[in-house]
Amino acid sequence: MGTTLRASLPKPEVLLHVAIVCAGLNSSREVVTLVKSMLFYRKNPLHLHLVTDAVARSILETLFLTWMVPALAPQISWVPNKHYSGLYGLMKLVLPGVLPPGLAQVIVLDTDVTFAADIAELWALFASFSDKQVIGLVENQSDWYLGNLWKNHRPWPALGRGFNTGVILLWLDRLRHAGWERMWQLTARRELLTQPATSLADQDIFNAVIKEHPGLVQPLPCVWNVQLSDHTLAERCYLEAADLKVVHWNSPKKLRVKNKHAEFFRNLYLTFLGYDGNLLRRELFGCPSQPPRGAEQLQQSLAQLDEEDPCFEFRQQQLTVLRAHLTFLPYKPPPPRPHDVTLVAQLSMDRLQMLEALCRHWPGPMSLALYLTDAEAQQFLHFVEASPVLSARQDVAYHVVYRDGSLYPVNQLRNVALAQALTPYVFLSDIDFLPAHSLYGYLRASIEQLGLGGLRKAALVVPAFESLHYRFSFPRSKAELLALLDAGALYTFRYHEWPQGHLPTDYARWREAQAPYRVQWAADYEPYVVVPRDCPRYDPRFVGFGWNKAAHIVELDVQEYELLVLPEAFAVHLPHTPSLDISRFALKEEFHQDLSRRYGAAALKYLPALQQPRSPA
Amino acid sequence: MGTTLRASLPKPEVLLHVAIVCAGLNSSREVVTLVKSMLFYRKNPLHLHLVTDAVARSILETLFLTWMVPALAPQISWVPNKHYSGLYGLMKLVLPGVLPPGLAQVIVLDTDVTFAADIAELWALFASFSDKQVIGLVENQSDWYLGNLWKNHRPWPALGRGFNTGVILLWLDRLRHAGWERMWQLTARRELLTQPATSLADQDIFNAVIKEHPGLVQPLPCVWNVQLSDHTLAERCYLEAADLKVVHWNSPKKLRVKNKHAEFFRNLYLTFLGYDGNLLRRELFGCPSQPPRGAEQLQQSLAQLDEEDPCFEFRQQQLTVLRAHLTFLPYKPPPPRPHDVTLVAQLSMDRLQMLEALCRHWPGPMSLALYLTDAEAQQFLHFVEASPVLSARQDVAYHVVYRDGSLYPVNQLRNVALAQALTPYVFLSDIDFLPAHSLYGYLRASIEQLGLGGLRKAALVVPAFESLHYRFSFPRSKAELLALLDAGALYTFRYHEWPQGHLPTDYARWREAQAPYRVQWAADYEPYVVVPRDCPRYDPRFVGFGWNKAAHIVELDVQEYELLVLPEAFAVHLPHTPSLDISRFALKEEFHQDLSRRYGAAALKYLPALQQPRSPA
Repeated sequence: MGTTLRASLPKPEVLLHVAIVCAGLNSSREVVTLVKSMLFYRKNPLHLHLVTDAVARSILETLFLTWMVPALAPQISWVPNKHYSGLYGLMKLVLPGVLPPGLAQVIVLDTDVTFAADIAELWALFASFSDKQVIGLVENQSDWYLGNLWKNHRPWPALGRGFNTGVILLWLDRLRHAGWERMWQLTARRELLTQPATSLADQDIFNAVIKEHPGLVQPLPCVWNVQLSDHTLAERCYLEAADLKVVHWNSPKKLRVKNKHAEFFRNLYLTFLGYDGNLLRRELFGCPSQPPRGAEQLQQSLAQLDEEDPCFEFRQQQLTVLRAHLTFLPYKPPPPRPHDVTLVAQLSMDRLQMLEALCRHWPGPMSLALYLTDAEAQQFLHFVEASPVLSARQDVAYHVVYRDGSLYPVNQLRNVALAQALTPYVFLSDIDFLPAHSLYGYLRASIEQLGLGGLRKAALVVPAFESLHYRFSFPRSKAELLALLDAGALYTFRYHEWPQGHLPTDYARWREAQAPYRVQWAADYEPYVVVPRDCPRYDPRFVGFGWNKAAHIVELDVQEYELLVLPEAFAVHLPHTPSLDISRFALKEEFHQDLSRRYGAAALKYLPALQQPRSPA
Repeated sequence: MGTTLRASLPKPEVLLHVAIVCAGLNSSREVVTLVKSMLFYRKNPLHLHLVTDAVARSILETLFLTWMVPALAPQISWVPNKHYSGLYGLMKLVLPGVLPPGLAQVIVLDTDVTFAADIAELWALFASFSDKQVIGLVENQSDWYLGNLWKNHRPWPALGRGFNTGVILLWLDRLRHAGWERMWQLTARRELLTQPATSLADQDIFNAVIKEHPGLVQPLPCVWNVQLSDHTLAERCYLEAADLKVVHWNSPKKLRVKNKHAEFFRNLYLTFLGYDGNLLRRELFGCPSQPPRGAEQLQQSLAQLDEEDPCFEFRQQQLTVLRAHLTFLPYKPPPPRPHDVTLVAQLSMDRLQMLEALCRHWPGPMSLALYLTDAEAQQFLHFVEASPVLSARQDVAYHVVYRDGSLYPVNQLRNVALAQALTPYVFLSDIDFLPAHSLYGYLRASIEQLGLGGLRKAALVVPAFESLHYRFSFPRSKAELLALLDAGALYTFRYHEWPQGHLPTDYARWREAQAPYRVQWAADYEPYVVVPRDCPRYDPRFVGFGWNKAAHIVELDVQEYELLVLPEAFAVHLPHTPSLDISRFALKEEFHQDLSRRYGAAALKYLPALQQPRSPA
């Protein structure tokens, strides 16, 4: 029974160490599913040793920092690229030297395994090692190492079917003591005299060493590494066991592998692929754990909130740390260009269909924050893969921020996208706007001509228009736009509902303008602007919709950004059904109080009571 | 280790019996989360004995029939309402008499428990019973039965803290043998001489019997029923255990219960609340199980599909059995009225915001199919609860159909909603249409006047219009509608993109019409119609969007329904951003072939090749 079993397991306070080699963008997605499955079943604190490259490191650092899982300490072991570049496949062999010298035992995992049981049961198998054994491995579940798969198939030497290295128990201090590094290097060098290279990377070398020193290995029960490779023999294992512990997706076909029980395994994988990672923020019992960085203060702030406060939901949302997976999809940063501009926007699932049109209108780099559930992130992945337009673009960075709470954290999302923009300038847009086809080129030219790179601190205003029809032919020039405006087919943005939002842009002047012109801030002004990347961040207090951009423009004005309207720039808003989220203005007042505190008298003019009523132009 | 543990558990082929008493609509939602948690961890085939009332029965029958979980045999034990009405609280006491006489042992569960471990471990505890023991129970984790909670608190008699009956191991044949029925009835009658009634229903009686016959009970480890009641003492249990097995939400506050570890428990519950139930369709290993009803044939059909067929995705979607939870929310069927009409429509998450407007425009009954993930179903529940307009309506039946596959099964959804309409007539509408405010009353009057109840087989056409603006003032009469039409503020539906869809409605004639007029079918005609409830179903082959309604109108015409346009009826389509799903017409041809096979020469005229080109009116 449970208690009997528990007795043979490490006590709940024992820290288990796990090492995972994770390089590149796809692996950094894959490892998340592995970690979720591990966290779901674990009852002990875990210490992850992630051996990463620069790309995976920056993604995973942010992910774990924002995930805030209690009793999880991912230590990202940073291995300089130049040294081991291209050698990630051999990384497992050098772990005894790379991991902290005081670390005695570690479980080593491939990123393509999924847990179906508590990892503590695996850790407990260290107790079954004899004094001489240093490596625990599951037998390879294919005939590869028997060398009979095809004519002239010459695998590396192995004991019988050999062992699979997707799951390893490494007794590190014994390995160090036994001179492991010399041992595997000698074997590898000797074999490489007759073998052109390894076929299966570190696994070949592990097997060759074990063939020579069979006493080193402790064979593990097959359920701890059920290998779903092509032509797998795994069925022999799990049909008897009924009690599957770890599934290893080691076919290049991954989830599409053909197998009588493929659906069973796929469902297990999909369970964790779509699992809400926020649910793994749960505490462990019986294990006094250090709260993750920042968590304690946050807990206190949350505990101090008054549930009766009408703004309770807002304040809760503001305090929520949102788990973020940066550059979720393949991405190539743009080459450094002094006047380049990144389009910055945020969206949720119901705006995905805007992406293709946006890509057609904006040929430059984009940084987009997507507010999604874990399951939606997978749908998004498939959506991009299925779209030739989207998958052709390498300069669009998609940052997934996982949903948590009931309100849309619009400004937190904007800040995530803004922080990831790598060009010197950013166009702070919204997902429902399609820019003029010429806008990207025109903005770069304008930035250069206006000498914005130097001392001039300016925000370039892109005048905003609105189509109330969901099908219309997009204007190819300012002249065409004006014609549509005169024909009543287009309007200036929110002309009927919220004219003050764009009043200072002075559309009448823009019609005639041949050169950029300066405008003055006025209450509720919220133009779409191009600014240097180091511009002020958005105020993350604004969640839900309403006044979130206006507050940002106030910040720009108070910091003395010139507001310059560009005569040839425009963007058009497309209609959509009203969002489920509702506008709320409750926090506007608090924003003003803060502004006064930070900027003193300079902020006074923004107070609604002190503003002159303006007549419409 | 795993194998050691497994040895003490029932073999994977052993069938475990579970009884759950489930009455009413809310319980039938609650029980689904319990069942998901049980199925997630189980490795044995299960037989569920669901003791239900009529409401829960019809919901759960459909749910399990469409869920198609292998190695799960829910046998819904139907207990006539008149007999046990109001006695569901005592149902657990009569289980030895109600369950099949051959059944020796059963696990009895409350609907508000959640599993965190394999139920086979619980079943294995039967082996710990002595010869005399017949009931396994966990101690009550509150001081209730100590009788010291408040002054004059007089609980029923119990041994010490007494036992909680949320989780029971019942040794049925021993109970029957021991004369259980007489035993508990005697005790209950005697106690009821001094107690006004039971406070905690069956639990009081179980405890009183046990107090008298302590030898009957085998106390179970506390982890098998961790009770999160108010002022629970459960912490003593799970803090030592670290190995939680079953959580019992027995506070009236349910998930909102205050508890130091509330978040841990809540996350466990939310895991299964949002868990994709389709993933539980996975096979069991080591247990040759009967496939669920219909599953074998389905498997064969699916296996015969050709992945290279360009329609592969379509055919796969058509063969998918969609899990359906009928009347997901509180619902009161409309009283029988001879001319009543139910509005029938289907939607997904991105159209939820239409529901309030629809409720304002249509005061009559509605039957709506919602295509949602398990997680979205919970969001939908909260959406309705938060809306005063929606929660005030008891005559709107919401049927949740769970997402599965990549295409939108529009006609399968329509058929679910149609099948659940209880009035003699149905208005087959779409979610983006708002009916004229007068339409509900006008339709009932028209049905009566036209004598549709009798022999006349007719489909009443509701002319369709379209607003291209997302804000407009809805016409309060036909006159206002015509004025908007003339002003170019409204159009006839899809006038620009697909005029043939509504051409036969003859809008020019409708303008002037004072009485219903008959129109003839023509190619691609797809009006919105009111028909008797027993009308033909939609062709479920049409998945995704495109030609799905047109095919249904063909069916009506071939079955010789008169098409009568109503002079005062109208509905207006509101714009929305294009859906992510794309129109596909691939299956139109196949539909025609089938039609010919079924209706012979009468179907010839629908073939596109034989149709006369028509000029627009």
